[in-house]
Amino acid sequence: MTQKTILSTDQANYDKRSWTRIINCLSGFKSTGLVGTDSSDQVGNLSVVSSLFHVGANPPLMGFVLRPHSSKSPRHTLINIREQSCFTINHITEDFYKKAHQASARHPYEVCEFKKCQLQKVYKQNFKAPFVGEAKIQIGLKLAEEIHVKSNNTHIVIGEINQIHIPEHIIQSDGFLNIDQAGTLTVSGLDTYNKAQKIARLSYAKPDLPVTEI
Amino acid sequence: MTQKTILSTDQANYDKRSWTRIINCLSGFKSTGLVGTDSSDQVGNLSVVSSLFHVGANPPLMGFVLRPHSSKSPRHTLINIREQSCFTINHITEDFYKKAHQASARHPYEVCEFKKCQLQKVYKQNFKAPFVGEAKIQIGLKLAEEIHVKSNNTHIVIGEINQIHIPEHIIQSDGFLNIDQAGTLTVSGLDTYNKAQKIARLSYAKPDLPVTEI
Repeated sequence: MTQKTILSTDQANYDKRSWTRIINCLSGFKSTGLVGTDSSDQVGNLSVVSSLFHVGANPPLMGFVLRPHSSKSPRHTLINIREQSCFTINHITEDFYKKAHQASARHPYEVCEFKKCQLQKVYKQNFKAPFVGEAKIQIGLKLAEEIHVKSNNTHIVIGEINQIHIPEHIIQSDGFLNIDQAGTLTVSGLDTYNKAQKIARLSYAKPDLPVTEI
Repeated sequence: MTQKTILSTDQANYDKRSWTRIINCLSGFKSTGLVGTDSSDQVGNLSVVSSLFHVGANPPLMGFVLRPHSSKSPRHTLINIREQSCFTINHITEDFYKKAHQASARHPYEVCEFKKCQLQKVYKQNFKAPFVGEAKIQIGLKLAEEIHVKSNNTHIVIGEINQIHIPEHIIQSDGFLNIDQAGTLTVSGLDTYNKAQKIARLSYAKPDLPVTEI
């Protein structure tokens, strides 16, 4: 295997898009989902995010990153979350990943992106934000915290899980969810969708005890 | 498919570990890596993180979450990053994922976790933080920003990429990296390691144009 070293000072040797692709691939296979929101007029918005991350279980918190928000490049998802204080996260599966990817196009704010992407807009349990009907794993969250990242003016949105809707058959007796059986995909780079295949589940690690498969 | 709804108010019906497993699975297939750091005495520390996320490409930024830091539960990784202002992220592959998982055990601060986990500690390009020799994708980062998450006292560490070391054969002409060919794994829940298999790479989405495979 020949290894290549790229230094940050080499950036000038790459065109902007190639550099962006390289950096986007370095964060590994990324957690992805469709973020569903409504405007105050109940116009539905969808956003593909590939920066979902676990923040904590108690209280149950998840986060994701949104790009800089400005009057020139308004982030409709951020506007809606600020106004409504809630949003949904919907796992993407092979059944509808192309429709989901279409949500990353720049649609005008007054266009319902559920309709535009031919995805079902559904409401559940009196939750104010809309879910994606096609998604097998649907999560409703209330805004917990919005964080400004000074380094590049992006926004981290942290939500507290209010409700989840998941297929009964993926729930193991100890709480583990077989999300591969629900068809959840993962993204690499900006645009590549992948299935995941389990290698092993490992025991809780303790010093001086070898890790075993469980 | 029978769908099950779980409300946050149902938490009382679950034991703490089951609840933690459920919530950890909801964030999808998670980006994982070994974070490598040195103490001021050059004692190596390793931490498995499963919350890596892309923050931006220009400047090149990545982040991850660390659990609450206290005198009772000190986070050695955080101590080292604060002291040295740098760290490495090393993708985990099937060749050494069990050794990597062992790094999540609570080892004393004065124990070199590279040695304890039988992983090679290597230095490159005068970078102060150590890389994992077995990793095919190695990233050296300088601390850009530490963010306190008020909602649960966790810490988000944002690093700026200083250098990367990757196999030459995974680099496509447009910058896309075939990280699956480098064997990069993804984690679900707390303890389950998965391979990824590409379904398709999709075209840049534009309004009113169908998404195509590229």
